[in-house]
This record gives sequence, structure tokens and C-alpha cells, in this order.
Amino acid sequence: MIFFLPKTAAIILAAGSSQRFGEDKLMVLVEGRPLVSYSLETFTSISSIQEIILVVASDREDFFRRFLKEKKDAELKKIKIVFGGVTRHESVRSGLLALSSDIEWVVIHDGARPLVSPSMIQLCLQKAQEYGAASLAVPVTETLHRADEQNVAEATIDRTHLWSMQTPQVFRKDDLISLLALKESKNFTDEVSALLEHGKKIYLVENREPNLKVTYPLDLKLVEALLSKVNFGE
Amino acid sequence: MIFFLPKTAAIILAAGSSQRFGEDKLMVLVEGRPLVSYSLETFTSISSIQEIILVVASDREDFFRRFLKEKKDAELKKIKIVFGGVTRHESVRSGLLALSSDIEWVVIHDGARPLVSPSMIQLCLQKAQEYGAASLAVPVTETLHRADEQNVAEATIDRTHLWSMQTPQVFRKDDLISLLALKESKNFTDEVSALLEHGKKIYLVENREPNLKVTYPLDLKLVEALLSKVNFGE
Repeated sequence: MIFFLPKTAAIILAAGSSQRFGEDKLMVLVEGRPLVSYSLETFTSISSIQEIILVVASDREDFFRRFLKEKKDAELKKIKIVFGGVTRHESVRSGLLALSSDIEWVVIHDGARPLVSPSMIQLCLQKAQEYGAASLAVPVTETLHRADEQNVAEATIDRTHLWSMQTPQVFRKDDLISLLALKESKNFTDEVSALLEHGKKIYLVENREPNLKVTYPLDLKLVEALLSKVNFGE
Repeated sequence: MIFFLPKTAAIILAAGSSQRFGEDKLMVLVEGRPLVSYSLETFTSISSIQEIILVVASDREDFFRRFLKEKKDAELKKIKIVFGGVTRHESVRSGLLALSSDIEWVVIHDGARPLVSPSMIQLCLQKAQEYGAASLAVPVTETLHRADEQNVAEATIDRTHLWSMQTPQVFRKDDLISLLALKESKNFTDEVSALLEHGKKIYLVENREPNLKVTYPLDLKLVEALLSKVNFGE
């Protein structure tokens, strides 16, 4: 019996505005390579992902093309560069429009999370196929409070079964396309929220490995430290 | 005019059960020193903190006493070791009972956060004296969802003005003592929640420096990497 794996693509979001970072964080060199190249390489290494759409800001195309020139031919064939928008929503849409028509599943990943591992991606893919959609996530362990405009605490949030979303997130391409056709979809902070609002199931895959999102310059030092010290092979 | 600074003490919580860590994380050696010694040293260096109560598990007393023997006499005089309970609530109570009677302000710190800096502590002290209480905190930047028992996402949490609590947290000693007298105080996840319920104001001090809490063994590698690579002096 021949077993056909559903066709899968990844959309790596690298068009962010990096407002809190000060400069374009995705182009910053980490151990001599642009930050986004770390997750790009991890996704390229996964054989079940046939296509990778790298969504970049339009004025960054030359930079990314130069960087991609150093890749092997086989890897290059997988990767397409498209221009993103100002918002995450617009960038996801650009990525979706660039997908080959036979793609069935889409992995969305934030290019500012360089530490994503093959096992995180595989597990999300597996659970998405089981439940319809999946997101890497961590249970909230800190106490949360809502504050007023003056940073004075007002109310405690019950943290029972509360999860903080990370990426990768895996969806059916058709679900994402339906969402993007909806006018109100722009107002959701992520695709999980939007799908949830439309009655879809999303499985949360518990992550226990470091997968931080570079937001402030100090995060970059943390990533550098991790890349040099932490043994991800264990 | 002579200006009297209110008397201030710190309670460092180091009696945790470390269930998710596998062994007692506070005793684990980081660059040759127990994890808890890092925050202990930072608190010892602050001249406006007259007294430090280190709350430890009863079977760890010898370990901590041996470690403290290496301290200078002046530092040692500041530090008292007391036994904590199974819960955070019981440990805070043990710490409070050990305070000198003239103490007015109490800084509570989680011993599993070794990266606390003098400026974090000073800022929390200052804001507490202004507002009545203060906690170091970070705005929630990730999307949060509540899930069911099977890890399937159910609802999106509005993250507007949502903050995740860290330590140090600074309170009036009298407020903490009043809280501990209340029967229901055991059910709160932290003192901020309890004070909030009783109509007190707590100012949230935004932290932008790394201040992670060691929970899993990998966090320790992160701390090691940070201690060796990040320049906290900048």
C-alpha cells in the first residue's frame, strides 16, 4: 500500500516592524547569520515540508536574496520569498497567496523564534492532522493581573488551564483561506483566536524547550548564549 | 533635618518543592555556587535593606549554613535562616514571623530568580513607598487562550493591560500581617492577589531585563549562559 502524506508548506513571518527592538531584528546577525536563517534552516531540514514561503518587508528583498544565494540548490527550490504587509494578518495573507495549489496543510512560524526544533514542528503537524489545527504553547505559570492605564493592578486573572501561544501553528490551508475572506478577521491577534471564534478545534501542544521570541535587544544575547551553550541534541 | 529611611527587610523564598525540576533546584550549583546565593548576594549588597530572611526547607538547613559560613561577618549579621512550609503561603508566614519588630517594609523575592538586579529592587521599593505596594511585572505580549482538560483551546483571553507578575514584590509589613490573619488568604496564588481582593493599591513596575524563574533543568542552562555572557552593567 502506498501512503500519501498530505502536502505541507511553511510560512515564515519575517516582515515584522521590530518597533520594540530598534532596528530590523530579523536581519541582525547572530553568530554571523541573520536571525531568521535559524528557523529557515530548521524548516528546510524537514522532508515532509515541500514548500517554504518566507514573508519579508519589501525593502529587504535584496538582503534576503543575497543570503539565500549561499544555500544549496535543493534547499533553494523549496523557498519562495514574498512581500508581507504591515500587520501579521497581511503577511499571512501574502504567504497564503503564494502557496502551490496542491498544499493542504500550512505551518505558520514567527521568524523571530530562532530556536524552533524539528521535533516541535513534527509534533504540531501530527496533532493538527489529528484535531484539525494545532499550536505550540506553554501553560501560564505566573500570576496574571489586569492593570489600569496607570499600571496599578485592578483584577486577578484566573490562570487555570490558561496557555500562552507560541509558534509553529499548523492549520488546514482551506481553513486559513476561509478566515481571510472574512472582514472581521483583521481584528484577531492570531489565527488560533480567529478559528476558535468560528467553532474550530485547536490542539495546544505543550512545549518544554526554549523557544523565545526576540523582542528586545537583550533577547538576542539570550539566543546567542543558548545557541552556544545549550545542547539541543539531548 | 534628619531624614529617617523606613526600616526594610527582604524575605527570600527558598523552600520550594521543585517538583517540575526533579531535584532541589535552589541547591543546584551554578558556576560553583548554589542557585539561591545569587539573589541572596544581590539583596545583601543593598544598604537600605537591614535584614534578610532566607526561608529554606527544614532538611536543607545544614546545606545553607555551610554555604553561609563563607560570607563576610557584616553580611552574615543581616541574614537569618528560617524553615518554610510546603506552600508559598506558609513560607511567607515563616518569614514574617522572623522579622525584627521595627521593620516597616518587606521585599518578597523568589529564590529561583537569580538574575534580580539592585535597580529592580530599588525601583520596587520606591514605587511601594509611593503607592503602598509594588511588584515587578512584565506586560503580556503573547496571545492567551483558555483550554479544556484535553488541551483543546476554548476561549481567547483579552490581553489588554494584562501583566505577568515577577518578584521582587514590596509590601507594608502590617498589610502582610493582616492578610495572614485571614483564613481565606491561603487560597490566593500570591500576596498581590490577596491585597487586591482587600482593596489595596499595587503598582506594577515594568521590567525589561531578564529575570527568569528556574523551573525546568533547561532554565538553569539559560541562567548559566546569561551569567557568563550578558553584561548586566550596561
